[in-house]
Amino acid sequence: PPGRKVLIVYAHQEPKSLNGSLKRIAVEELSKQGCSVTVSDLYAMQFEPRATRNDIVGSLHNSEEFNYGVETWEAYKRGSLSTDVIEEQKKVQEADLLIFQFPLYWFSMPAIMKGWMDRVLVQGFAHEFPNCYDSGLLKNKLALFSFTTGGSREMYAKEGISGDIRYLLWPMQHGIMHFCGVKVLAPHICFSPEYVSEEKRKEMLIAWAQRLKTLWKEEPINCSPEWYFK
Amino acid sequence: PPGRKVLIVYAHQEPKSLNGSLKRIAVEELSKQGCSVTVSDLYAMQFEPRATRNDIVGSLHNSEEFNYGVETWEAYKRGSLSTDVIEEQKKVQEADLLIFQFPLYWFSMPAIMKGWMDRVLVQGFAHEFPNCYDSGLLKNKLALFSFTTGGSREMYAKEGISGDIRYLLWPMQHGIMHFCGVKVLAPHICFSPEYVSEEKRKEMLIAWAQRLKTLWKEEPINCSPEWYFK
Repeated sequence: PPGRKVLIVYAHQEPKSLNGSLKRIAVEELSKQGCSVTVSDLYAMQFEPRATRNDIVGSLHNSEEFNYGVETWEAYKRGSLSTDVIEEQKKVQEADLLIFQFPLYWFSMPAIMKGWMDRVLVQGFAHEFPNCYDSGLLKNKLALFSFTTGGSREMYAKEGISGDIRYLLWPMQHGIMHFCGVKVLAPHICFSPEYVSEEKRKEMLIAWAQRLKTLWKEEPINCSPEWYFK
Repeated sequence: PPGRKVLIVYAHQEPKSLNGSLKRIAVEELSKQGCSVTVSDLYAMQFEPRATRNDIVGSLHNSEEFNYGVETWEAYKRGSLSTDVIEEQKKVQEADLLIFQFPLYWFSMPAIMKGWMDRVLVQGFAHEFPNCYDSGLLKNKLALFSFTTGGSREMYAKEGISGDIRYLLWPMQHGIMHFCGVKVLAPHICFSPEYVSEEKRKEMLIAWAQRLKTLWKEEPINCSPEWYFK
């Protein structure tokens, strides 16, 4: 609906890829609805995935023994995180909905996107004990993981060789988003687009565009072990 | 035992950290046993986590539409992956045992280590359909995930707020190592070392040194859904 803000965190090297098309469709459809859409195109930005001392501008809280979690927490409070991290935090802060668009790499997100999680969602900003899970600091936001796989739907069935696809969603949806208080919409999964026909790939794009039309009416999943491992 | 080769892939910024001590103890104890031990100290190496076109030296198989999986597979066969990736592959090839030593970041490994997985374990080298899972190309090797957590043992209990710690091991142990044919030893987990006494931390180091003494007699876990989600 008009006025809603969406951040798409996108990790694919190739604009012509299916991931590139899925991202473009989301920008178009959500903009058409009157949403304001921002994209963090991680490879194009050459986003830094490594959690290092460089993420803190100026002197350290404890320069004798470097502790990334403590230092970024302190730096967040002083406003002295590196500018690329601050930029991403502003985008997250403003967003009502976060869409993560990526190809599944090794049952998870590509390292460049994992680095976005590691560096952006610091203590003080996204959580601050005991404000985690349902009372995480990013509550009142929604997240949606939209990704492509190499393996087929059959491989990712409960009795398939790779196990239920929901098993691998636990760390990303529960361990990251739910931990920060973000409510999770059902994932959007395109199974093995590289091994299907051009026709099928077009259907995948149409299905995503269709889903986006009624996305704001969706209820979040119940992000508890039952959903994943029932 | 004498002659066995071990690769420790290590991801912590601070040598004085518990992770640093755990790594050092492994080097010492395994060397004492006569093993030859190599360490990939990812932050010290400034290891590149991003999967990009730079991983392929020279021209691409298809420069019209960049596909990282296809390009690295082709580059592996031609011997034209970037030298840092080739170096890591040599270390893996020679190793009988891979130890991954890291602090848990967001229910998973730090991005710099995820990037090691994404870039090093390419098709052709670590797997090549249908050679995956029990017939993966790295069979006859062992892997062990050794990590520290922020959350306590109680939070990571089956009925705890973060769920059974085994849930989050599925993508790493099954999705990556088992997929490549590597057999998995039980994980070694130090729960929330930052919130316990110096005394307790010393016990953690002693327990690790003790375990290493009989490590070669251990049987791998049965890496199937039952182990994780029973």
